[in-house]
Amino acid sequence: MATIAPSRRVRRTPFSDGVEAAGVKGYTVYNHMLLPTVFESITADYRHLKDHVQVWDVACERQVELRGPDAARLIQMLTPRDLRKMRVGQCYYVPMVDETGGMLNDPVVVKLAEDRYWISIADSDLLFWVKAIALGFRLDVLVDEPDVSPLAIQGPKADALMVRLFGDAVRDVKFFHFGWFDFQGRSLTIARSGYSKQGGYEIYVEGGDIGMPLWNALFAAGEDLQVRAGCPNMIERIEGGLLSYGNDMTRNNTPHECGLGKFCNTNTAIGCIGRDALLRVAKEGPVQQIRAIAIEGDIPACDRAWPLLAGGKKVGQITSAAASPDFGANVAIGMVRMTHWDAGTRLEVETPAGLRPATVQDKFWI
Amino acid sequence: MATIAPSRRVRRTPFSDGVEAAGVKGYTVYNHMLLPTVFESITADYRHLKDHVQVWDVACERQVELRGPDAARLIQMLTPRDLRKMRVGQCYYVPMVDETGGMLNDPVVVKLAEDRYWISIADSDLLFWVKAIALGFRLDVLVDEPDVSPLAIQGPKADALMVRLFGDAVRDVKFFHFGWFDFQGRSLTIARSGYSKQGGYEIYVEGGDIGMPLWNALFAAGEDLQVRAGCPNMIERIEGGLLSYGNDMTRNNTPHECGLGKFCNTNTAIGCIGRDALLRVAKEGPVQQIRAIAIEGDIPACDRAWPLLAGGKKVGQITSAAASPDFGANVAIGMVRMTHWDAGTRLEVETPAGLRPATVQDKFWI
Repeated sequence: MATIAPSRRVRRTPFSDGVEAAGVKGYTVYNHMLLPTVFESITADYRHLKDHVQVWDVACERQVELRGPDAARLIQMLTPRDLRKMRVGQCYYVPMVDETGGMLNDPVVVKLAEDRYWISIADSDLLFWVKAIALGFRLDVLVDEPDVSPLAIQGPKADALMVRLFGDAVRDVKFFHFGWFDFQGRSLTIARSGYSKQGGYEIYVEGGDIGMPLWNALFAAGEDLQVRAGCPNMIERIEGGLLSYGNDMTRNNTPHECGLGKFCNTNTAIGCIGRDALLRVAKEGPVQQIRAIAIEGDIPACDRAWPLLAGGKKVGQITSAAASPDFGANVAIGMVRMTHWDAGTRLEVETPAGLRPATVQDKFWI
Repeated sequence: MATIAPSRRVRRTPFSDGVEAAGVKGYTVYNHMLLPTVFESITADYRHLKDHVQVWDVACERQVELRGPDAARLIQMLTPRDLRKMRVGQCYYVPMVDETGGMLNDPVVVKLAEDRYWISIADSDLLFWVKAIALGFRLDVLVDEPDVSPLAIQGPKADALMVRLFGDAVRDVKFFHFGWFDFQGRSLTIARSGYSKQGGYEIYVEGGDIGMPLWNALFAAGEDLQVRAGCPNMIERIEGGLLSYGNDMTRNNTPHECGLGKFCNTNTAIGCIGRDALLRVAKEGPVQQIRAIAIEGDIPACDRAWPLLAGGKKVGQITSAAASPDFGANVAIGMVRMTHWDAGTRLEVETPAGLRPATVQDKFWI
């Protein structure tokens, strides 16, 4: 495997010094920023995540901040999810689409005030889209990337660790809600959320200067909890069916194809730019959709889309795959045509190492 | 140095198989795609580039295609460079700016027809900006990313190699112009351009399926020319003052700060979205600007901005730096405040390895 070349363009994070001191072994680039992918090994990191608590440098989940009288109008233009009932203190997972209903990003929206939102983005320069929409539609709103870097605390002992730093009140934060908590005299937005199924929090660290002090405080407080540096774990996120923008879905896909139809209120989300296109999809249903797929045999790293075949004919593709220790199978995420998406359907996967038998699952491994 | 993690999100290119067979040792991620950074070593690659000819996988220079009656109007909205006299067959280097004059990208525009352009982009999702501008301003234009992957042929023997595949006519292509040439029955757009000062071509490979056939044909034809797989070389591009978006300039900078004022025709580029903001800058001049900087002593890899100090006070920053074998100095690119940007000004650079003396140069090493 080739090493990653150093350059300013691939931005370091406020936590990079901590990540490197913890012995990061693999990186990827996400929103022009370093994102750790492995510390001890993917399977050792996986085991530890499920048993203990990890601190993740997910600063690459950059924020697009909307501020001003038209902020609410603009955010509804970006997504088919009806945001009218969203309250301050809530986080919403929202597919964001272009005028054809193609996915541009699948961020979490954080409502900070009636006229102020953060869009916590997946890997695409959504800022460019949002800024140009605000400009083209002459909206009264400021759009920018603030100095906010999320740090995730994930794993079954996440509550135990967080209470030590932020007090018992942090336990009361409900799933996909947030509260404000003090750290060294600064108020931090802390949400119960994160890119794993093990539970935990995301701290929106405002101001890079307190990145390492917070990192160090978490490790000092959690030594007996076996806290470790971690990162989104490929195996765990596939088991849990957590999609990855750029991997499992792209601009070519509608939210319905991605199984995100439940976040599309195309009848009421008036103002959404992609609404007309998606209304059509909502009526007729998608012709292909994301499915959990189990693959048999040895598989290589999934660094490209692998064709899914039925009788030699392409009926879909695998976009994420990994061997799961807990489920004793290769767990995978694929996009499958409706003719072959029923649970139990037997298919073949064309991996670079050869054909492998595969079976469509009725659900992810959760 | 950590390895780069495999995932579909970090896209392979039509030439990745060739790049890997050639023993690529380092990668970066550029426009969500793999970009090789080193083969033998940065200095050995540098020597070879200056003496022979290299084939570069720069597929990551993705194209944003504009097609339709409003294509010309749209492209002028994106840049302060006056494009009215641009002819079919020409390539223009054009800063692209937002409504505040901040740089969004510094691509090369290729004019394929009066109503059809490719924008060959640096590392940002310019597609999102352009699509939203087209939508917001209700323009009659299609905007998309076509299946076009540039392959660069760079070095003093580039002409010799290209003639063998495309005939003598390829020599007649003038700098920043292009022609159409046949390869295996397909017409390819070939420009005299590239991200080095050693001369050469960029082949816009339309259709990923002919990527490896073309790659292989080039290596077969150029064996006695010592053709090798290469990539943009950090030392050579700093010597030549070739800026890198994300490294030497960001959305925070105007073109004037980047020394690109000559590409800003703010008096005539009517329609440019950032014109009003840049008119102001053009009148008063920027307060900081890109400079060539020589740094003394040993320096580490430049993976973050290094502060430039004068008497302990910050007066700028270094964003790219490397030891140059040919010039016996550390060559660097920095942004310096006007109070300290005169050639010969002595400064200090705060590198992670300590303070280093530095001198502002009157020009790059060309």
